[in-house]
Amino acid sequence: MMSNLSLMTDLYQLTMLNGYYASGKQDDEAVFDLFLRQQVVTSSYAITAGLEQVIDYIRNLKFDKESIAYLKSLKIFDSKFLKYLEGLRFEGDIWAIPEGAVVFAGEPLITVKASLAQAQLIETALLNIINHQTIIATKASRIAWAAHKSPVIEFGLRRAHSPDAGIYGSRAAVIGGVTSTSNVLSAKLFGLRAKGTHAHSWVKSFDTELSAFEAYAEVFKDNCLLLVDTYDTLKSGVPNAIKVFDKLKASGHKPVGIRLDSGDLAYLSKKARAMLDSAGHKDVLIYASGDIDENVIQSLSLQGAKIDAWGVGTRLITGDGVGLNGVYKLAQINGKPKMKVSDSIQRATNPGHKKLYRIYEKKGGKAFADVITLEGEVLDKPLILTHPVERWKTTTLDDYTAKELQVPIFKKGKLVYKSPSVSDIATYSAKCKTTFWDEYFRITNPQIYKVNLSDKLYELKNNMILKETDC
Amino acid sequence: MMSNLSLMTDLYQLTMLNGYYASGKQDDEAVFDLFLRQQVVTSSYAITAGLEQVIDYIRNLKFDKESIAYLKSLKIFDSKFLKYLEGLRFEGDIWAIPEGAVVFAGEPLITVKASLAQAQLIETALLNIINHQTIIATKASRIAWAAHKSPVIEFGLRRAHSPDAGIYGSRAAVIGGVTSTSNVLSAKLFGLRAKGTHAHSWVKSFDTELSAFEAYAEVFKDNCLLLVDTYDTLKSGVPNAIKVFDKLKASGHKPVGIRLDSGDLAYLSKKARAMLDSAGHKDVLIYASGDIDENVIQSLSLQGAKIDAWGVGTRLITGDGVGLNGVYKLAQINGKPKMKVSDSIQRATNPGHKKLYRIYEKKGGKAFADVITLEGEVLDKPLILTHPVERWKTTTLDDYTAKELQVPIFKKGKLVYKSPSVSDIATYSAKCKTTFWDEYFRITNPQIYKVNLSDKLYELKNNMILKETDC
Repeated sequence: MMSNLSLMTDLYQLTMLNGYYASGKQDDEAVFDLFLRQQVVTSSYAITAGLEQVIDYIRNLKFDKESIAYLKSLKIFDSKFLKYLEGLRFEGDIWAIPEGAVVFAGEPLITVKASLAQAQLIETALLNIINHQTIIATKASRIAWAAHKSPVIEFGLRRAHSPDAGIYGSRAAVIGGVTSTSNVLSAKLFGLRAKGTHAHSWVKSFDTELSAFEAYAEVFKDNCLLLVDTYDTLKSGVPNAIKVFDKLKASGHKPVGIRLDSGDLAYLSKKARAMLDSAGHKDVLIYASGDIDENVIQSLSLQGAKIDAWGVGTRLITGDGVGLNGVYKLAQINGKPKMKVSDSIQRATNPGHKKLYRIYEKKGGKAFADVITLEGEVLDKPLILTHPVERWKTTTLDDYTAKELQVPIFKKGKLVYKSPSVSDIATYSAKCKTTFWDEYFRITNPQIYKVNLSDKLYELKNNMILKETDC
Repeated sequence: MMSNLSLMTDLYQLTMLNGYYASGKQDDEAVFDLFLRQQVVTSSYAITAGLEQVIDYIRNLKFDKESIAYLKSLKIFDSKFLKYLEGLRFEGDIWAIPEGAVVFAGEPLITVKASLAQAQLIETALLNIINHQTIIATKASRIAWAAHKSPVIEFGLRRAHSPDAGIYGSRAAVIGGVTSTSNVLSAKLFGLRAKGTHAHSWVKSFDTELSAFEAYAEVFKDNCLLLVDTYDTLKSGVPNAIKVFDKLKASGHKPVGIRLDSGDLAYLSKKARAMLDSAGHKDVLIYASGDIDENVIQSLSLQGAKIDAWGVGTRLITGDGVGLNGVYKLAQINGKPKMKVSDSIQRATNPGHKKLYRIYEKKGGKAFADVITLEGEVLDKPLILTHPVERWKTTTLDDYTAKELQVPIFKKGKLVYKSPSVSDIATYSAKCKTTFWDEYFRITNPQIYKVNLSDKLYELKNNMILKETDC
């Protein structure tokens, strides 16, 4: 999939590059931050994903002859600039928060320090990749949290926005906490667990439901999961499944389960559970699917639905309702801090080259707050945290530990980071979540985690706002 | 992008294939339809897109050694089946409605007649590609309709769900009626018009807004479109733009326009228009961007916003609010009609191998209704159309013309169709829309277009429902 995506950018990045070049500014040293805007709809937390693909993109960044010829044909670029563009590679520094981390709006997920031309050029691809995978990983995390210990299977490929969206979407879903995927190519590429059994068309292709179930059980004796809602779930599907399970059991095999894909899942699962139990199939699992997400899981669970595993499609792979909105903003140029002042102080960006720390209550304790500082600042001990907006509110921490969240990815264009496997990232993500109180993960109205600015950064920002609105 | 995507499928397609093979059913002759389920949220019409990529997928369908080895490693398939799978190619027939057509829920957009194994295997990829591009083309069509004659520029790449989602999303957006795109790679691949100027970071990278504007105008003398909301739009942005435009004009160049990206676009555009006009720049255009879609365009236009061109990002490239939901259902096997009966007759699928006709009031007249018939049926003259649900309502057409909407794409595995260029598809789509009364395109509560079933198809369906619910 990811080959050379150098031309995968907004045209204005290239017109700006031409402009920087013509103005002699292309080598100005720039710092850009990629961060999430305040979320509109859902949780305050997000799960980072997509860094490995960002790295691939950066390493392959190079405009080949064909691309240059195409740009020339647009007749808007001057030829000296196109010559320059042909020789352009990424030679700057990049820091990033590793994939799978729990992060919050306003935090620099990726910081790029490079020539203005190089740093500007990569904006669109970085946003595309990080926005997509972070949305899906976050949605997956919410769903997995709602499902508690029950496995969640991602099977949204048919509703993903393009092949790639499905392939990288499954990757991100597993990072966020989903157990397995139906997407075979994604499973192969990223070492994910592939899962799946049969559809309604299997049942319809036989003369009767029972013969379809029997044929399936014949082939998949030890992997027999039957979809029971093609005709009537309780009158036909479950009784037919029980007949087949009886035979499998009698011949020494262990039936896996049934899947409900329509109707009222609370009612049907309770009835089906009772029928299976009284037929002696207490260990046969009930899978449920059909427009599932974290909200549906919670409301079904509240009514005592007997569902052991969830199949989640459209709403996961489209990141339904996750209002994440990653942006990439200039923070500094030639050592001079820059910011974009918006209508409100909350929406103003954070100027300067920054560092991000996670503060834990004490050694081995839970995460307490994150602090964004200017580069080079040292955290005091005791640490006084000031509320980001209500400045009169402070908290003093005598005994704490701090961890820098960003790690170096590129140094002067050289890759200095090795991406972990997706399974290691998923493990890391699960561990990262255990360092937070569970209240931060609540689906509706979660506790809001504090992201503070150091006093120095706050003062810089405040002074710049006063000056800029004066402009 | 699109190379070999054979493994891009749900695992259950392959387990079913193994099952069909083991049951000796793999060569049963199957007919599947791809159609849109009734839409939940928005318009009743959709614009088809994605066929060219479906064709690419089908032509490349082949499991290579590496894929077979991967499937073997999963330890769920038997090796005779994997041998069979390795030799499998698509050798069936496919009919489809050409891209850019106006279509409605329930209509077979694609009909596949092939061996059960081949027809089943391609489900996931077909749905992925068609669902994605049709959603975007439909959203684009709605936006373009709301924008009336004003150009619409697609620039959602940074919010697209993966690189491919942006690349094919831009393609679909242009099919739906968008004028141009910011996505350079997509423009190159599909011959689209690429558009774009500069971002806030351009302005921030200079010491003052005026110097940034001047530098931009220096490089792009005849293509000068300035983003005026980095500081204060009316106090700083527009006056600075006017200064630059004055100079450009004095030296014989024609300034293009300004872009508003935040604030109240109705208010700001009216004020900016007045300022530009009184400075003698009546022909300078006002572009607007920032969370735009058809609803925003309509409400701004109602308040007299002076906006000449629209930049549309997130809501277009994510198909926001377009509740399209393509499915792929078995309709016939070995000549025997099949259907999936759901909770309601409206949701039951249409059995049998079908044909789809568009009925025009008279020669050169407007589209009046679509009719789905069984294959081989001939339309009567006069034609009696019966309401799909309220069967007592009929309409008789004495003088009409009918057009079959599907065209042959593959015959026995051989491609018999040449995809038009995207620009030709867009032209075709615009023309297709002129054959409908404008009332069908209204954004809210549009007139509902009738999709009828022939009496024969209706009776077949009804009889099957009675029999099946009996099952």
